[in-house]
Amino acid sequence: MKTYHDCIPCFVRQSLEASRLVTGDKSLHERVLRDMLKKISEMDLDQPPPLMGREIHRKIRELTGSDDPYSVVKAEYNAFALGMYDEMKNRVKKSKDPFATAMRLAVAGNIIDFGVASDLDKSYVRRVIEDSLTGPLHGDPDHLEQAARKARHILYLGDNAGEILFDRILIEELPADRVVFAVRGGPVINDATMEDADAVGLSELVEVIDNGTDLPGTFLPECSDKFLRQFEKADLVISKGQGNYETLSGSGAEDKVVFLFKVKCEVVASDTHCEKGTAVALPGNVAGGKE
Amino acid sequence: MKTYHDCIPCFVRQSLEASRLVTGDKSLHERVLRDMLKKISEMDLDQPPPLMGREIHRKIRELTGSDDPYSVVKAEYNAFALGMYDEMKNRVKKSKDPFATAMRLAVAGNIIDFGVASDLDKSYVRRVIEDSLTGPLHGDPDHLEQAARKARHILYLGDNAGEILFDRILIEELPADRVVFAVRGGPVINDATMEDADAVGLSELVEVIDNGTDLPGTFLPECSDKFLRQFEKADLVISKGQGNYETLSGSGAEDKVVFLFKVKCEVVASDTHCEKGTAVALPGNVAGGKE
Repeated sequence: MKTYHDCIPCFVRQSLEASRLVTGDKSLHERVLRDMLKKISEMDLDQPPPLMGREIHRKIRELTGSDDPYSVVKAEYNAFALGMYDEMKNRVKKSKDPFATAMRLAVAGNIIDFGVASDLDKSYVRRVIEDSLTGPLHGDPDHLEQAARKARHILYLGDNAGEILFDRILIEELPADRVVFAVRGGPVINDATMEDADAVGLSELVEVIDNGTDLPGTFLPECSDKFLRQFEKADLVISKGQGNYETLSGSGAEDKVVFLFKVKCEVVASDTHCEKGTAVALPGNVAGGKE
Repeated sequence: MKTYHDCIPCFVRQSLEASRLVTGDKSLHERVLRDMLKKISEMDLDQPPPLMGREIHRKIRELTGSDDPYSVVKAEYNAFALGMYDEMKNRVKKSKDPFATAMRLAVAGNIIDFGVASDLDKSYVRRVIEDSLTGPLHGDPDHLEQAARKARHILYLGDNAGEILFDRILIEELPADRVVFAVRGGPVINDATMEDADAVGLSELVEVIDNGTDLPGTFLPECSDKFLRQFEKADLVISKGQGNYETLSGSGAEDKVVFLFKVKCEVVASDTHCEKGTAVALPGNVAGGKE
């Protein structure tokens, strides 16, 4: 997906909100804003929005001198999600359709995203998870289970810390020996890295690799060779989150991808022909305005 | 009022929305965005926000080659407001407190502002006007009538086209021979200029001058000598709208000012200690965090 004009005010807002989340130093907020305004003024709009997301968070890390300013938030949401594990597993087990329930939970877990909403709280996350079990699911909810049954190699692209506990619950309904899980190559926002996969027990369940980038998405031209070999090999890619959607949709590689995410902004709502807030399970061959 | 960090994403959003309102040419939207991002990255945050508002709209006028891109909207809202004149006058006449009713209508008329909301529609304006007659009024609602009774020279600073018909209704409750009305010196957004004062019959009622600037506010360091003489001479200044509040509050000249406006953004809400949407009648000596 390219960068829409409406992404631009949002980048500026995100620059401010993210710098506020990371430090109380107002002079630093101003430096982040000024530097990012300049950078955004020269950006290539043909590139997907997460490339500017990366620049924002690189700038914040550079100016705060912190390699991983969201580390506390990530640990907190991993622990929060782990605390819900037994209850969620129980729901999946008791469900008439355990796969569908696990998939709905994995989509709902995508709400744990500090990139779009800096004021996230846990009671809201709980409510979204409750609603997800019965609410509508845009796209083709049955496609993933069918595709997973046939697939020999499944690459699962994680999104955020905390959320990946919900990914684990879905992976436990998949043939885990055929699944490779990918995290980001370095800290960016609250996106999951290797540490988070370890924290929620994913690393014991499946092979976990990183994609070699510090980008809040999966931008293939910059991913590591190791990651690209897995992407190539996979006959099914499960892609979690808006950032992965924004980078893979329209990339030419999306046909074997199933996108699972919560729609968090008007731009992606318009791109996916549904409303903000919608839970999505969208096969890549119909994504990105191709419908 | 200085420019807050939260104004910055809003400037970018306004640049995009205003350019969309004025032209459907997307390449022009992009040029406005890029040029404004660069300009905002270098702005002086000690200056009031309407100075950047002026830059946005100068840029749009420059790139569209249109001197007054809001002229149609302005004429439309003047006509719309004129169509409500008899009904409003009747309400004032029948009211137990005609001055208070006229003042409430003048505040409500301030909703006709294309600077903050580019998607304004007339049914919404009507609803705001209805609600204004009974809704709360933040500040000191009685102050203006008392101050007006004592004042020998009243300077009334208009804000938007359409809205100035409501200003006329309030001025008709004032000693009109002691009132001078000021409009902007040149087109900016849908702010009222001399043409609009003529269109709603204000020019026949009081002396109308312009402030010598194309700024959506009253920034004294740039106003014309003629305007400044009137400002100096006035013992009461009635200031309509957020732009006039943003430029005059904290200017050092606000003690003789009464600010009448609708609070349209979170920044001014916080600066005036009230909620977005609030109708305000605020004496200048208690405005701008001095409370």
